[in-house]
Amino acid sequence: MSNTRKIVITGSHGFIGTNLAMKLSKIKDISLIGVDSCISGSNNKMYTDHFMKHYQFCLTNINQLKNVLEGAHIVIHLAAKGNVIDSLKDPISNLHSNVTSTVCLLEAMRISGVRNIIFSSTGGALMGNTKPPVNEESLPSPISPYGASKNACEGYLSSYAESYNFNSIILRFGNVYGKYSSHKIGVINQWIRRVIQGIDLEIYGDGSSTRDYIHVDDICQGIYLASERLREKSTHGILEKYHLANNQEISLNQILNHLKKISDKPISSKYYPTRKGEVYRNSSENKLARDKLGFIPKVAFGEGVKQLYNWIKNEEFDLG
Amino acid sequence: MSNTRKIVITGSHGFIGTNLAMKLSKIKDISLIGVDSCISGSNNKMYTDHFMKHYQFCLTNINQLKNVLEGAHIVIHLAAKGNVIDSLKDPISNLHSNVTSTVCLLEAMRISGVRNIIFSSTGGALMGNTKPPVNEESLPSPISPYGASKNACEGYLSSYAESYNFNSIILRFGNVYGKYSSHKIGVINQWIRRVIQGIDLEIYGDGSSTRDYIHVDDICQGIYLASERLREKSTHGILEKYHLANNQEISLNQILNHLKKISDKPISSKYYPTRKGEVYRNSSENKLARDKLGFIPKVAFGEGVKQLYNWIKNEEFDLG
Repeated sequence: MSNTRKIVITGSHGFIGTNLAMKLSKIKDISLIGVDSCISGSNNKMYTDHFMKHYQFCLTNINQLKNVLEGAHIVIHLAAKGNVIDSLKDPISNLHSNVTSTVCLLEAMRISGVRNIIFSSTGGALMGNTKPPVNEESLPSPISPYGASKNACEGYLSSYAESYNFNSIILRFGNVYGKYSSHKIGVINQWIRRVIQGIDLEIYGDGSSTRDYIHVDDICQGIYLASERLREKSTHGILEKYHLANNQEISLNQILNHLKKISDKPISSKYYPTRKGEVYRNSSENKLARDKLGFIPKVAFGEGVKQLYNWIKNEEFDLG
Repeated sequence: MSNTRKIVITGSHGFIGTNLAMKLSKIKDISLIGVDSCISGSNNKMYTDHFMKHYQFCLTNINQLKNVLEGAHIVIHLAAKGNVIDSLKDPISNLHSNVTSTVCLLEAMRISGVRNIIFSSTGGALMGNTKPPVNEESLPSPISPYGASKNACEGYLSSYAESYNFNSIILRFGNVYGKYSSHKIGVINQWIRRVIQGIDLEIYGDGSSTRDYIHVDDICQGIYLASERLREKSTHGILEKYHLANNQEISLNQILNHLKKISDKPISSKYYPTRKGEVYRNSSENKLARDKLGFIPKVAFGEGVKQLYNWIKNEEFDLG
C-alpha cells in the first residue's frame, strides 16, 4: 500500500501557495496537486510546475474539482481575493471568489469523500477594530467585505465539521510577507519597489497604524504543522482555529525605519487620509498555535524585510 | 414636506413578513413596499395586498431592487430560506438565497443611498451547540449551512456599517411561531396539523431537545422597536445586535404536553434518531433587547400554541 499523501493546494499560483509547495515538495511521500483560477496575475507557476501538476479553473466548477480531488488526503485552501481595498470597490466579485468558491469546494469535497481541509483565514480583517491583541476567543467584527468573506467561510467550515464530519483547521494569518510575491501590492512590497525606484512612499494615516507581520516561511511551517495535526486525528468532526501571527504590532513608521536602514538611497514619503475598511491596529496572540501545533515563528521582522528587499531587487529589477 | 416613511420589507409574502406588514399598516405615516421571490410557496399575499404593493423578483436583481428602494427610509430584510434540513440537502441553493441575495441587497442599498437596515438573523442556528443561554457576547459556531448563511450575512452587515456608513440592527430571533404560517413546516405547525388529522407525531431524539420559542407578535413588536431606534439615530455607522427570544428552553416533550391539553383527541408519537445539523438545546438571553429596545415578550407559550392551533384548524382545515 502506498503511503504517499495527495495534497491539493488551491491558489497554487499564489504567493503563499508557491512558498508552501516548494516547502512541501522537499518532504517524502507527499504528492502535490495545484488548482488556480489564474485571475491573480501571478507568474509563480514557473517556480513549481517542474514538480507538481497545476489545474486552471474556477473553484465554482464542482465537476472539475471532483476529478482533481479524487483520492486526496487533504485540501489546503489558499485561493482568495485578498485585497481589502479591492473588496470595497466590488464586494460581489469578492464574495464570489472567496465565499461562493469556498462553499463549492466544500461541496465538491463532500461529494468526493475528502474530509480534511486547512483554510487560510485572517486575523486583522476578521476582527476589525477590536482592541489588539486578539485571540481565538475574540468576537469577529469585520469592517471590510474582504473581512466579511473570511468570516463567512469560517462559519461554513464550522457547519461542515458538524453536518458532514469534516476535519477542519482554520488558520488566521497575520499580514504575510516574503518572496514569490511579485504580483502582490501589500505595503511592504509596494514600499520596497518605490524605494528601489526612488519614488515617494504613500502613507495612509499618520504612520502609527499597525499590523502583525509574519514571514511566509513561518506561515508555511504553521500550515505544515496543521496538516500533520489533521493526519494524527482519526476522529471526524474536528474544528480548530489558530492565529498564526507574531503577537507583535509593527507600525508603518517602523517599516519606514527598517527600509531606511536597508536602503542606501534617501527615502521620501507622503501622508494621505486613512482609507475606509482598513483596520487601524492589529496583532494576534499565537499562544494556542504554540501550545497545540508547536508553532514558533522564527523570522525576525527586520531580517525578513531585508530578505524581501533583496529578492525584489533581484527578481523584479535585475532581470534585464 | 411629507413625513411618510417608506419601509421596504423583503420576504413580504412570508410568515413574519405578513404579520409585520399587518402590524405596521396600522401605524400612521408609514408606506409599505414588499419584495418577494415567491419561492416559499406562501399564499400570504392575499392578506396584505389590499394595503401594500408587492414586487416579485429575486433579490440578486440589483437593477430592479434599485427602483424599489428609491426614497426608502429603511429595509427590513426578512427574505431567506429558513429550513435547516433543506440547507443540509442543498447548501449552495441556501447560500444563494440567503447570502448572495443579502450582499446584492446591500449593494443595491449602497447604490441607492438607502442606509438603514434591520436584518433577521437567528439565535439557535448561529450559535450551534454553545451551552444555553447564549447572548450577544457568545461566539457564533454554526452547525448547519443555514446557520452559516446567517453568520455570513451578519459579517457583511458589520462590514457595511463601517465601510459604507450603514445603520444596521441585527435581530437574532428565537424559534418564531404563530399565525399566517400555512407554508411553514416547523415542528409546532407540523405537530398541530398531525394532531388535527390524527397522525403520529415524529420526534427526533428522545424529546428532550429544546428551543427558545417566541410568538410572532412579540417578534414584530421587536422589529418595530428596532425600526424606531434606527429612526432616532442620526449618526451613520451604527451596528447593533439583539437576541429577540424568551430566555426559556421548551422541549419537544413539553410541546407535546401542551398539545395534549389543547386537543380533545388522543395523540400518539414515534421517536426517530436525531438529525445532523440540528441544535440540541437552545435559549437566548434578551436582556440587551429589553434594556436598549424596550423589548418585552408578552405571549405565554401555552397561550400562543393554543391560538396557533385554532388558527390552523380554521385556516387549513375548515375551508371546505
